[in-house]
Amino acid sequence: MNGAESLVRSLVAGGVDTCFTNPGTSEMHIVSALDRVQEMRCVLGLFEGVVTGAADGYARMAEKPACTLLHLGPGLANGIANLHNASRAHVPIVNVIGQHAIDHLRYDAPLTSDIEAIARPYANWLRTSSSASEVGCDAAEAIAAARTAPGQIATLIVPADVAWAEGGKVADVSPVPRPALPAFESIDRATSMLRSGLPTALLLAGNALSGEGLELAGRIAAGTGARLLAPYPITRVRRGAGAVAIERIPYTPNQAVEVLKGFRQLILVGAAPPVSYFAYPGRASVLTSPECEIHALARPGEDYTGALEALADALSLGTKEPIVNKPNRPSVPTGEITLDGLATTVSALLPEDAIVVDEAMTSGRGIMAACAGAPPHDWLGNTGGSIGIALPLAVGAAVACPARRVLCLTADGSGMYTLQALWTMAREGLRVTTVVFANRSYAVLQKEFAGLGVGDPGPRARSLFDIGHPSLDWVNLAKGMGVPATRVTSLDAFARGLRDSYAADGPSLIEIPF
Amino acid sequence: MNGAESLVRSLVAGGVDTCFTNPGTSEMHIVSALDRVQEMRCVLGLFEGVVTGAADGYARMAEKPACTLLHLGPGLANGIANLHNASRAHVPIVNVIGQHAIDHLRYDAPLTSDIEAIARPYANWLRTSSSASEVGCDAAEAIAAARTAPGQIATLIVPADVAWAEGGKVADVSPVPRPALPAFESIDRATSMLRSGLPTALLLAGNALSGEGLELAGRIAAGTGARLLAPYPITRVRRGAGAVAIERIPYTPNQAVEVLKGFRQLILVGAAPPVSYFAYPGRASVLTSPECEIHALARPGEDYTGALEALADALSLGTKEPIVNKPNRPSVPTGEITLDGLATTVSALLPEDAIVVDEAMTSGRGIMAACAGAPPHDWLGNTGGSIGIALPLAVGAAVACPARRVLCLTADGSGMYTLQALWTMAREGLRVTTVVFANRSYAVLQKEFAGLGVGDPGPRARSLFDIGHPSLDWVNLAKGMGVPATRVTSLDAFARGLRDSYAADGPSLIEIPF
Repeated sequence: MNGAESLVRSLVAGGVDTCFTNPGTSEMHIVSALDRVQEMRCVLGLFEGVVTGAADGYARMAEKPACTLLHLGPGLANGIANLHNASRAHVPIVNVIGQHAIDHLRYDAPLTSDIEAIARPYANWLRTSSSASEVGCDAAEAIAAARTAPGQIATLIVPADVAWAEGGKVADVSPVPRPALPAFESIDRATSMLRSGLPTALLLAGNALSGEGLELAGRIAAGTGARLLAPYPITRVRRGAGAVAIERIPYTPNQAVEVLKGFRQLILVGAAPPVSYFAYPGRASVLTSPECEIHALARPGEDYTGALEALADALSLGTKEPIVNKPNRPSVPTGEITLDGLATTVSALLPEDAIVVDEAMTSGRGIMAACAGAPPHDWLGNTGGSIGIALPLAVGAAVACPARRVLCLTADGSGMYTLQALWTMAREGLRVTTVVFANRSYAVLQKEFAGLGVGDPGPRARSLFDIGHPSLDWVNLAKGMGVPATRVTSLDAFARGLRDSYAADGPSLIEIPF
Repeated sequence: MNGAESLVRSLVAGGVDTCFTNPGTSEMHIVSALDRVQEMRCVLGLFEGVVTGAADGYARMAEKPACTLLHLGPGLANGIANLHNASRAHVPIVNVIGQHAIDHLRYDAPLTSDIEAIARPYANWLRTSSSASEVGCDAAEAIAAARTAPGQIATLIVPADVAWAEGGKVADVSPVPRPALPAFESIDRATSMLRSGLPTALLLAGNALSGEGLELAGRIAAGTGARLLAPYPITRVRRGAGAVAIERIPYTPNQAVEVLKGFRQLILVGAAPPVSYFAYPGRASVLTSPECEIHALARPGEDYTGALEALADALSLGTKEPIVNKPNRPSVPTGEITLDGLATTVSALLPEDAIVVDEAMTSGRGIMAACAGAPPHDWLGNTGGSIGIALPLAVGAAVACPARRVLCLTADGSGMYTLQALWTMAREGLRVTTVVFANRSYAVLQKEFAGLGVGDPGPRARSLFDIGHPSLDWVNLAKGMGVPATRVTSLDAFARGLRDSYAADGPSLIEIPF
């Protein structure tokens, strides 16, 4: 068995059975090994930002890492922006990056680069395999590193001669350290805060936003009067009728400050203290009021569910039930397109157990709130602010959950960074409904320009925010990649488009010029 | 004057008057400054790989750097693959990267990253500006660094508060060090080699491939019987009727070895010794024969033209004229599409003084040779092996040379990495004719797989080389970005498409399913 085959078999043995890839010559022996290991599913992307973003979406939904297989330093570089997003959200990913054969490096061939240097800013674990006999072990360690709480990016660089040499050994699964409970003092402090009677919120992240963690947080909120908050950069939250009620902190600093100003205490569960995305001249970066005491009940990497359980016990909540969203399915609106109408339409038709991927920064802001009473669903957002993740995330989520419908909300500006994802949706027959809010502009930048107090944009600045000359025609772009598409100019047509898309057994796209 | 304005004015003062950009919130004060400095042309790209690749193409043709303006670490990361290509070719680029305001960094907001770490692998000069009063000077130094031979990448990181603070000062142009002549011994050694009577070639790079350098090399070749070679990764070479005859080393190792095996001496002028792109089990990486003596007449960064002039003087060539390509314009072929027919059609119709951008790895390999006798033109290739540069390069070349026609030869696989460049072509009305050879596959990988001796590809490997399910429809993709497009299935239609495109006052695209 060569190194490449031991690598792939070790990945599969460790539970990593999905590979998002855009390989090149230096990865051909690994590609050949994939031919011999049928347990590994391979999903091709035509651009590496699709590959890493899909691995992120997969891991969020599958609750285990996928691997990527990327071509040398430039292939990795193309995937970095979405690794930034995954890294900020502690989403586990195992990257496998090809490298030249070790003897070839000295010749400084055109594709030679310092791959470790390119990988390091977004690798919690980083190694270059040194021999065929060790690459299997390296893969097992990479998986363990990726799975170590709160979730990490592990990057394994595999020289071509390590892949092609004989002597590969399939490695045993490496143990994953269990996340630790926070210290007693931390739980005790949170208990006191919740008993103080002061206005208090719990800000949740990671797996505290779904499943048992969210249930426990909901019971604590119900028993103490505390409010539950989610950060704006949201990895995955359970939403809809029957889900624990939780409010997302808005993106816009003014709105975020408005939501947070009433709280005198903020308890963090895996979350970072809320700060604005950007600095604005003369404004504070911190979004909470100066009087607000912030306490980290559980820090990233600690056991969020265990911490919440201990807190609930300390508060003696008994059988207190969480406050959950009531079913509230609006009827399907008709007529002209409005922001409210679009949000209501999405809520009215959202399929049971849908996965909603949301990167519609401007036109889509009202949709999440409108879906509070829709059938239960998961909501996935952009976690690192690097634009261009929605379409790849949708690919990964759909690969992880083939039985569920994925609704991908994006915009013309954000969608263009990684539009190649549409082709992978078509190739894999993924049941993704992509909605493109085509406002023909970098609308978020127009708002930011105003928010920065720079004055009115002149012709040059306006031109740089204007992506409508020429307009992007998403119907043609989607068709060009094999995805059926339609443009809708009324709410009725939007509803029809969503119904048709949800009934289809593959991807489709709806463009809304608005 | 704030820091942003002093930055832009210093760039313009230093001759950098073209900015390829995809800005974000942290760059808004620089965008605002662009409104006040009309001398700076701004070209928007919808993806940063377009931005950096266009800056590369611009610099190759304008013979001076453009600047980029990119959004934080992820924006830079998206541009790295094409910076890899520029870096390998010593193409000068000044990158301006926004950073959070310095006080904001401590809050670790979602878009926070170690931008210097991301930039370092591809920055010969790297600095983070520390104040508004210094950012102008920093820009001037960045320009000087970029222009320092053989051409460098200079990356300047500008925190938002450095941009928005008052106290900016426009800096004087910094002096650019002149490239040094090689030592006398180096010229003397080359002189002896050329007088030895042994089979000898000169391998040229950089500005030795055009203008005075190429003329001198041509005279040396004519006077000594040496052959002139260009490396496969070609930055820019003057070609066509009347241009000095020069042969490009083929990409495929077998073919390259065949070209090189007869030479007992190889004299490098700015070029690296020829090696294969990749390692293959049991094969040497070095492409020259073991008996071949390799001597660097001029190393990267030295004065190539001066070295060739000194060499010509030492050889006492007198008025010896170089051997040039004879005019040889084939007639336009008709009938079914063949590789030869495509190449002949391109040659038959190539406009005078065209710029040909070439990344058609598989289907386009015969075109360069077929154009040897076509009207004079410049040929630009992929210099670092990172696929996806042709369309951005064409953007930059067309911006640099608005009076010239650009012919961009790409493939469906390579084109997809940075297809967003088509939109910039439409927005700017660039006179670019894009030809997409749509072979529906990563054909180069099929060949590499065979070359690596991995055996026959199985169904999984074949599937990873197959990008034809679904087929990419480039006519729709181009139309989706505002570029008129047509699909041709005969040589007659191809010729018609080229003629129409060359007559049009903007971009167009021709897809050839082949």
